[in-house]
Amino acid sequence: MDWDKIDRFTKSLIKEAGHKIRNSFFERIQIESKSNVNDLVTNIDQEIEQFFIQNIQFAFPDHRVLGEEGYGDQVTTLNGVVWIIDPIDGTMNFVHQKRNFAISIGVYEDGVGMLGYIYDVVRDELYAAKNGAGAYLNDERLPRLSDGSIEEAVIGVNARWFNAKRYVNGGKLLNLVADCRGTRSYGSAALEIAYVASGKLDAYISGRLSPWDVAGGVVIAQEVGAITTNFKGTTLNFVQPDSLIVSRPSLHAFILQNYIEVNA
Amino acid sequence: MDWDKIDRFTKSLIKEAGHKIRNSFFERIQIESKSNVNDLVTNIDQEIEQFFIQNIQFAFPDHRVLGEEGYGDQVTTLNGVVWIIDPIDGTMNFVHQKRNFAISIGVYEDGVGMLGYIYDVVRDELYAAKNGAGAYLNDERLPRLSDGSIEEAVIGVNARWFNAKRYVNGGKLLNLVADCRGTRSYGSAALEIAYVASGKLDAYISGRLSPWDVAGGVVIAQEVGAITTNFKGTTLNFVQPDSLIVSRPSLHAFILQNYIEVNA
Repeated sequence: MDWDKIDRFTKSLIKEAGHKIRNSFFERIQIESKSNVNDLVTNIDQEIEQFFIQNIQFAFPDHRVLGEEGYGDQVTTLNGVVWIIDPIDGTMNFVHQKRNFAISIGVYEDGVGMLGYIYDVVRDELYAAKNGAGAYLNDERLPRLSDGSIEEAVIGVNARWFNAKRYVNGGKLLNLVADCRGTRSYGSAALEIAYVASGKLDAYISGRLSPWDVAGGVVIAQEVGAITTNFKGTTLNFVQPDSLIVSRPSLHAFILQNYIEVNA
Repeated sequence: MDWDKIDRFTKSLIKEAGHKIRNSFFERIQIESKSNVNDLVTNIDQEIEQFFIQNIQFAFPDHRVLGEEGYGDQVTTLNGVVWIIDPIDGTMNFVHQKRNFAISIGVYEDGVGMLGYIYDVVRDELYAAKNGAGAYLNDERLPRLSDGSIEEAVIGVNARWFNAKRYVNGGKLLNLVADCRGTRSYGSAALEIAYVASGKLDAYISGRLSPWDVAGGVVIAQEVGAITTNFKGTTLNFVQPDSLIVSRPSLHAFILQNYIEVNA
């Protein structure tokens, strides 16, 4: 497998998709909801996913593609090469703000993350990583993450988890807010993982994410030494929804032990 | 008073200050804490405030200046012309992220907001308003805000207020999270007010802010028809800390009545 070639191919596709998305701001965007009224999808999410899948299938007919909008393959195992794609992570931001959303792509070979991409379309910032070759923000290599204390940590976490009874004890998670330096919430899991990888956040926590929200980010996070697990402390499997905590190395176990209580 | 001239003067100063701040990224920034360990200040906050004050005092010796870092005047009333300045709103973001912070300036005459500015230094986005002449984002006029429903609202609120016992009932505020479409937290009150004024957020809520956090934003918000009050529903006085709710017109009373309970 020529991963350098696939890397160049993917970056080129991502830049073209970003151009299409920025152009869509001047068109009428059609908005629908999916599983619930706040789970938005637009014609642009759908068109961009189809753009990726068609190009990947043409170039690599033996690869499989798992996409958020369902135009790809039914993927229940990560055997072979699997692309995991979110054409627009943060669709609510795309609709409401026309910013703060990202294209997210992870490419896995037999379950191992080989390539990861998170593209902040409006800022034109591409976070990209190749397994074993480090992570980059555009042309700049991201340094390995140092340790840090909870008292000086700025943590990404959406307020919905403080109300949660399913997945996580929201009240206990609120103690984290009191103990850390500050919290932020940007509404795009992919971007928030990228912010951890690039030191803008010290940790990011979510009670439930889909494989396409995290697959690209996990490869990038690993390349800078961030720790990535679900709330049980085990690795993600990328074929089912799961919780996520990604952080500087020293913070991971501390947050998991002191603030995370998984509910049935 | 030639407000057009003062407007041009202020925009020019803000752009020069923004240039200084962006240049500071290549220097060593000295970080200290003020009222508590998470209340950060840097030498850049201090230098930029002094830059503004010196220029304003030279050009308008009879104006007074209230600045976050304390280099201005002791201001206990808004008689005459008062400039209310935050050289870097979102210092924690400035330190941790080198983005997502703003210069905020409000110019008041006998308590009436005449000019308002919020400058996102890294995005180079200047939100600016003149009393009665509308609000702009760079060269583009911001449209008046339409009404909206809570179910479709994206609301800016920092997680610290869900824990709060002082200032506001945190538990009741958590109900808002369940009822609205989503919440965000960016860590700069000035930017979050600007996001409401430009439709990126539908409301922004904070239990306690200082005059320099809000003075520029309130002028901008008013020019697009946003409603701005404290948690008691009364107007801010801009000389003491206060709570804040700023939102689309229809949402203001609804949020205040259903989710805000002021604690003693």
